[in-house]
Amino acid sequence: MRDGPIAILGGTGDQGLGLALRFCAAGRDVAIGSRTLERAVAAAEEVRKQVPGAKVAGLENGDATARAGVVILSVPFEHTAGTLKAIRERLAPGQIVVSMGVPLASAVGDAASRMIGVWQGSCAELVAALVPDGVHVVSAFQNVSAHRLQHLADPVECDVVVSGEKEPRARVIGLCALVPGLRGIDGGPLANARIVESITALLIGLNIRYRVSEGIGVRFTGVPLP
Amino acid sequence: MRDGPIAILGGTGDQGLGLALRFCAAGRDVAIGSRTLERAVAAAEEVRKQVPGAKVAGLENGDATARAGVVILSVPFEHTAGTLKAIRERLAPGQIVVSMGVPLASAVGDAASRMIGVWQGSCAELVAALVPDGVHVVSAFQNVSAHRLQHLADPVECDVVVSGEKEPRARVIGLCALVPGLRGIDGGPLANARIVESITALLIGLNIRYRVSEGIGVRFTGVPLP
Repeated sequence: MRDGPIAILGGTGDQGLGLALRFCAAGRDVAIGSRTLERAVAAAEEVRKQVPGAKVAGLENGDATARAGVVILSVPFEHTAGTLKAIRERLAPGQIVVSMGVPLASAVGDAASRMIGVWQGSCAELVAALVPDGVHVVSAFQNVSAHRLQHLADPVECDVVVSGEKEPRARVIGLCALVPGLRGIDGGPLANARIVESITALLIGLNIRYRVSEGIGVRFTGVPLP
Repeated sequence: MRDGPIAILGGTGDQGLGLALRFCAAGRDVAIGSRTLERAVAAAEEVRKQVPGAKVAGLENGDATARAGVVILSVPFEHTAGTLKAIRERLAPGQIVVSMGVPLASAVGDAASRMIGVWQGSCAELVAALVPDGVHVVSAFQNVSAHRLQHLADPVECDVVVSGEKEPRARVIGLCALVPGLRGIDGGPLANARIVESITALLIGLNIRYRVSEGIGVRFTGVPLP
């Protein structure tokens, strides 16, 4: 596996920006990627404003990808395949691509509290079908509230189920530990993303019914963790 | 909706027996149902041993159903349709049937940490397709550890996502409150059982990877509840 900054593609969106803020606050090197350089640069500026001394750059998606060890895909589900096809040539063996997309039915104009079916089984498995050989795909971060990520003063209070091959999975579990209140949970094989992604739709429904604009999270009880 | 005891069909199994113990400990009237009267009577005897003064009867499934207000289906997924067809004539409008089955792949000889697809979308929706008109179907209790239910000395520490029509759903949320540590969560429409049922497969995988024989549970953070 490769070293280098954490690239966050779609890092100008709410959830991507939240992760960028948190990883920068933990002292990590972050490359915010966007389709347009200007938006990426503006998002990096925003991060530096909130996290003085942040090591963050705003780059076009391909350039952010090329220098990263871990590439987090934080784009709406319907842009997943297009984004991957655009950066495919910039990915290299040993890199980890983190899928955090969820096939919410809002992608086809229906409600975000429902899912659409993905032929490959999940967004993460779609991503795995599109990356070059030797690139590891890990599923994580789907259920973390953007609002809570961006609110740096408070811990996030959410478990992150991380699934994929063993070693890349362990590395992404390590990234979770950088964010106060976030706990990485060993989610086993990548296909479990089918379940984890659907939990997001459930949480969106709960947010609506309980009127929790900050976002409801999930914790697993009885997990023997440090 | 109807009053009467809580019937637990398949109440001789681990999870059904656990619920029977807990509801009896809370002073509720319980009818344990089984395909064979002898096994139901033995399970009721076991409950009375652990909960002195328990109001519990052991009955054949149909007889347990006929007198109940709420009928909890606690049979392995592969016996769901068969059990329902056998008791269909004993169900009456106003009763609530609670589906707690999960279409685990173990039903077809594969692993319990994976799911099989159900044409109707979920076990709960299969149940809804099989009950007579006027019988309400609610999905609940899938993710509650049998071991923790049976260990009466400790609270269960698990949220129960309850989905289905509004009024029956509220009634089942009320049942959750009878069990220390169990919290009923408003899970919206019945189709959300698709997500909630699959969480069971995820928890089974977590139990294996983390070697937690008592069973890992789930909690939602940030839910504004009493």
